[in-house]
Amino acid sequence: MSKIHICIIGMGLIGGSLGLALKEASYDQFNITAVDNNPQSLKIAVERGAADQICTEPSQGVRKADIVFICTPVLQIVPIVEQILPFLKKETIITDVGSTKEYLAEKINAILPAGISYVGGHPMAGREQSGIEAADKTLFRNKWYIFIPEVSTSLQALKAVTHIIEYTGANITTMKVKEHDRCAAVISHVPHVAAASMVNLLDFSHDADESLKLAGGGFRDTTRIASSNADMWADICLTNGAAITDGLEDLRSLLAQVILDIERGNRQAIHDFFSVAKKRRDALLNMSL
Amino acid sequence: MSKIHICIIGMGLIGGSLGLALKEASYDQFNITAVDNNPQSLKIAVERGAADQICTEPSQGVRKADIVFICTPVLQIVPIVEQILPFLKKETIITDVGSTKEYLAEKINAILPAGISYVGGHPMAGREQSGIEAADKTLFRNKWYIFIPEVSTSLQALKAVTHIIEYTGANITTMKVKEHDRCAAVISHVPHVAAASMVNLLDFSHDADESLKLAGGGFRDTTRIASSNADMWADICLTNGAAITDGLEDLRSLLAQVILDIERGNRQAIHDFFSVAKKRRDALLNMSL
Repeated sequence: MSKIHICIIGMGLIGGSLGLALKEASYDQFNITAVDNNPQSLKIAVERGAADQICTEPSQGVRKADIVFICTPVLQIVPIVEQILPFLKKETIITDVGSTKEYLAEKINAILPAGISYVGGHPMAGREQSGIEAADKTLFRNKWYIFIPEVSTSLQALKAVTHIIEYTGANITTMKVKEHDRCAAVISHVPHVAAASMVNLLDFSHDADESLKLAGGGFRDTTRIASSNADMWADICLTNGAAITDGLEDLRSLLAQVILDIERGNRQAIHDFFSVAKKRRDALLNMSL
Repeated sequence: MSKIHICIIGMGLIGGSLGLALKEASYDQFNITAVDNNPQSLKIAVERGAADQICTEPSQGVRKADIVFICTPVLQIVPIVEQILPFLKKETIITDVGSTKEYLAEKINAILPAGISYVGGHPMAGREQSGIEAADKTLFRNKWYIFIPEVSTSLQALKAVTHIIEYTGANITTMKVKEHDRCAAVISHVPHVAAASMVNLLDFSHDADESLKLAGGGFRDTTRIASSNADMWADICLTNGAAITDGLEDLRSLLAQVILDIERGNRQAIHDFFSVAKKRRDALLNMSL
């Protein structure tokens, strides 16, 4: 049986973890080419066993690929697709792991030539660390990996990518594209902006250093995702802008209501606000979030 | 040497952990009476070794006390002080662990009779679990325990409470009262409101259940403190209202600026926003937050 050739472009946390997981689980049926513009990341990728061969040029790395995973920040994905298209074999499948799916699908499907397929995917496997150093072969295990059939060009291509992702141990599911982007805004993108805002709030304070004495596990956890990659998150904000600004406006409304309740001394309303949140949060935990 | 009699009112996470830590570290020099209106909490307190004797009535529990620790939600503290004052020995010291210090000091110092001292304290040792079940003898270890000399009635009383708290392994420090309340708002109270808001934001969504598929470790950590005790947090909001609403307004301003930057497609500004937050957050981690 001939090997399936996989090219992973972007040897960061996700690309590196994907390489590690596939090499580990596949009994060598995948041949993996890692592409990154950072030679140091490629060196580590090979040392850690995430790739069979490496390459700094996407147009070189994709030539033999049956499937190309693009694992870069969102705004780099479309330029990379444009760059690699002339060099792909017939029937190559392109897939990506970007967090905002409508923007990407529109741009990519608009330039896709006949014979090349696109599958929109999104693994729910972020961490605040980034880079190949943080890659982990178990990163996807028991996490949702969402595919968007609505924006994928063929059922056959979707099946092929799904089959490969099964090796990572992820729970595979599907969503509609608008629903995905709206839900991602509420559950992931808005919390990232809020966490970064809470860190930056310290600059408003005249006594930021003294404040830190009062910082406990609560502050540490609530702001953990503020340590995420700035490039990645700037791209997400720009490509899922409408859903994120909607969510941020809703968050501002909720905060305005709390301010009003505090100013009015309305203990019942404030108590209800916290207890509804606690009930829902505890229920989420029981779902083994 | 006769034992020091300590009464702990409120056998929740903090009161229970204090009892456990003092019994563990004191080589039996402390006699601890636990007071709570919940007999079940008292039963567990004894079983777990957090107290020598128990009592459901504050006015009974404090009679022999040299030092009374009040470890209840903030708004219950002043009524408890009023209730116990007639039953205290001369020279008893009252101290509390409430998160908002100016409100408490003003109310308590206004009713304190001659001979009774008050010491304002605040351990930075919250967890999202509450109750004696979650109590832990190491809860205070290497955490800040802040005293507010400015609102404490005597240096001698402050020294006595400090000496006892040293047994918990906490790092003891002092702050001015307004500074404490302002810093606590920025670093703790506002993040709690924001975390609860992010959970409640799911109610704005038409597809909350689908959203949960996209919830990963980021959402779990960012909203962890939304599982905190609602009574405790309602009280904190009401008793540190001005500092908290100031902080929430600042947070709303930061979010409004991000919305504007997204709408204008200003990637540089959004990138700077995330990268400043990341740099500061990473620096905090290096301070072994």
